[in-house]
Amino acid sequence: MASKGIYVEKVIVIALGGNALIRKGQRGTFQEQVENLIRITPEIARASRSYRIVLTHGNGPQVGNLYLQQEHTRDVPPMPLHACVAMTQSLIGYMIQTAFSKCCPELRVNVVPTRVIVASDDPAFSNPTKPIGPYYDGAQVEDLKKKGWSLVMVPGRGWRRVVPSPKPREIVELEQIRTSVERFEVTVAVGGGGVPVVKQNGSLVGVDAVIDKDLASSVLAVSLNAESFLILTDVEGVYLDYGSEKQQLIREIRLREAQELLEKGYFPPGSMGPKVEAVIEFVRATGRKAIIGHLDKLEEIIRGVSGTIFKP
Amino acid sequence: MASKGIYVEKVIVIALGGNALIRKGQRGTFQEQVENLIRITPEIARASRSYRIVLTHGNGPQVGNLYLQQEHTRDVPPMPLHACVAMTQSLIGYMIQTAFSKCCPELRVNVVPTRVIVASDDPAFSNPTKPIGPYYDGAQVEDLKKKGWSLVMVPGRGWRRVVPSPKPREIVELEQIRTSVERFEVTVAVGGGGVPVVKQNGSLVGVDAVIDKDLASSVLAVSLNAESFLILTDVEGVYLDYGSEKQQLIREIRLREAQELLEKGYFPPGSMGPKVEAVIEFVRATGRKAIIGHLDKLEEIIRGVSGTIFKP
Repeated sequence: MASKGIYVEKVIVIALGGNALIRKGQRGTFQEQVENLIRITPEIARASRSYRIVLTHGNGPQVGNLYLQQEHTRDVPPMPLHACVAMTQSLIGYMIQTAFSKCCPELRVNVVPTRVIVASDDPAFSNPTKPIGPYYDGAQVEDLKKKGWSLVMVPGRGWRRVVPSPKPREIVELEQIRTSVERFEVTVAVGGGGVPVVKQNGSLVGVDAVIDKDLASSVLAVSLNAESFLILTDVEGVYLDYGSEKQQLIREIRLREAQELLEKGYFPPGSMGPKVEAVIEFVRATGRKAIIGHLDKLEEIIRGVSGTIFKP
Repeated sequence: MASKGIYVEKVIVIALGGNALIRKGQRGTFQEQVENLIRITPEIARASRSYRIVLTHGNGPQVGNLYLQQEHTRDVPPMPLHACVAMTQSLIGYMIQTAFSKCCPELRVNVVPTRVIVASDDPAFSNPTKPIGPYYDGAQVEDLKKKGWSLVMVPGRGWRRVVPSPKPREIVELEQIRTSVERFEVTVAVGGGGVPVVKQNGSLVGVDAVIDKDLASSVLAVSLNAESFLILTDVEGVYLDYGSEKQQLIREIRLREAQELLEKGYFPPGSMGPKVEAVIEFVRATGRKAIIGHLDKLEEIIRGVSGTIFKP
């Protein structure tokens, strides 16, 4: 990690996985989430001396909780899912600011609530796959379907709502994010993959869907022409034969090979798949490196000695 | 409203009252709130040709709903009140963006989630007065007090939680707001009076309180050295003997006289009092005019032919 003046203008986009906020076994109180963030904010602050940092983050558990709360309260009109995504952006942004304020109060952290345009004819809209919210029993299914919901049966658990997960196309607040990156040390953006909107007669209208946060972060990293794109998660990197006895961490991989493995279905769609897809998109578009690595190893990842490095 | 180039850099801070979002008799669905906003966004867009606009807004019903939802859902950890304020900032900011996108998609609207510093020894902390959330029956009071809550009895309705309403001291994200004002036509900031934080060993820590949105907007207007400060509400302006047969709209009033009326208790603390206090602060600090007027008359207010004008 160089500290030369020449690097100061450079931008790194860092996508934080869900466990940056809620660790296994936690219920996700405000205090827990801020404390989890405090485990990584000092490293990010250090990195901010050499780079402009853009933090993106997931919002799965937070939007799930919000959604559950809305479901349980009959006397308050529930907000649509896209509005719940918006709410979690400033909630999590505020938690991140609170964590930075503890470790490094001098750092200016700017939160940019972000909308992301998706195509209204994205095939995801006719094939919703992303589960969200609580489990329901069979007796409720007919009523829920009347709301226009799609539900899937999860064996042993019950019925669950699934929503579309369309591809991110364009960051609406790109100019706001760019301005923030120019002026402030840390910018928080594209939270939860962004609030999904479609173009309708020239206007932007929210849709009930969720955008994969790694794919949206990749679109942002490409749009900002970032120096590097890092995805931080709870494993050391990308493995071959993950979970088996012969599992093997990939230290470096070329774009073409990564693409082949992805197409062959080596990486599961719910977890490593979208991350690998996201970094492939970035490397292809920019010709620069991207890394998937462990949340607790940011410094090593930036030095290039930890994580899986994707090269052109 | 001059359209000369010389005015383009000037800033107007406009504080939107609660009924800009939820009108009487409405439950406050997302759609209702966006439609209410669409009634005023075209006027604001017109004003944005001559001025840089900073919009601030209340969040009473929205934070009340959120709070109620959290109370009703036992299996999800509730977020503290300050975090709920943060959530409503991006919720309402997103509604405002959606409304602008309908009427004037070319306008760039930037939402700045905002923290506001209050003094930890503010007398409000030992005298909580701001009611929030649902009514409880007497049987629940002991349990609720164990949470550290203050409750008041509202005759005929039941018990209700009251929280402190400390004075806003300083806008944490002032630099972010300034940057936004320089670059974008409309900036949304200090939503719901801002997320209240206190300084604690150099860090900023959220507190369970709510800041009056008009007072916080005034602090922002002064800090931005705004050309003018407007408070939009559901009456034509400030009245003498409001509600009586001889009620009389004040068209213009000097700082000194306004201060006298305020001190004599002419304006009720829950409604017109904080608005008058807020505009007095602005006029005193800047030597410029401030106006309290009707939500539907922005254009006339800017031309100086509607509302109550407060002069130095």
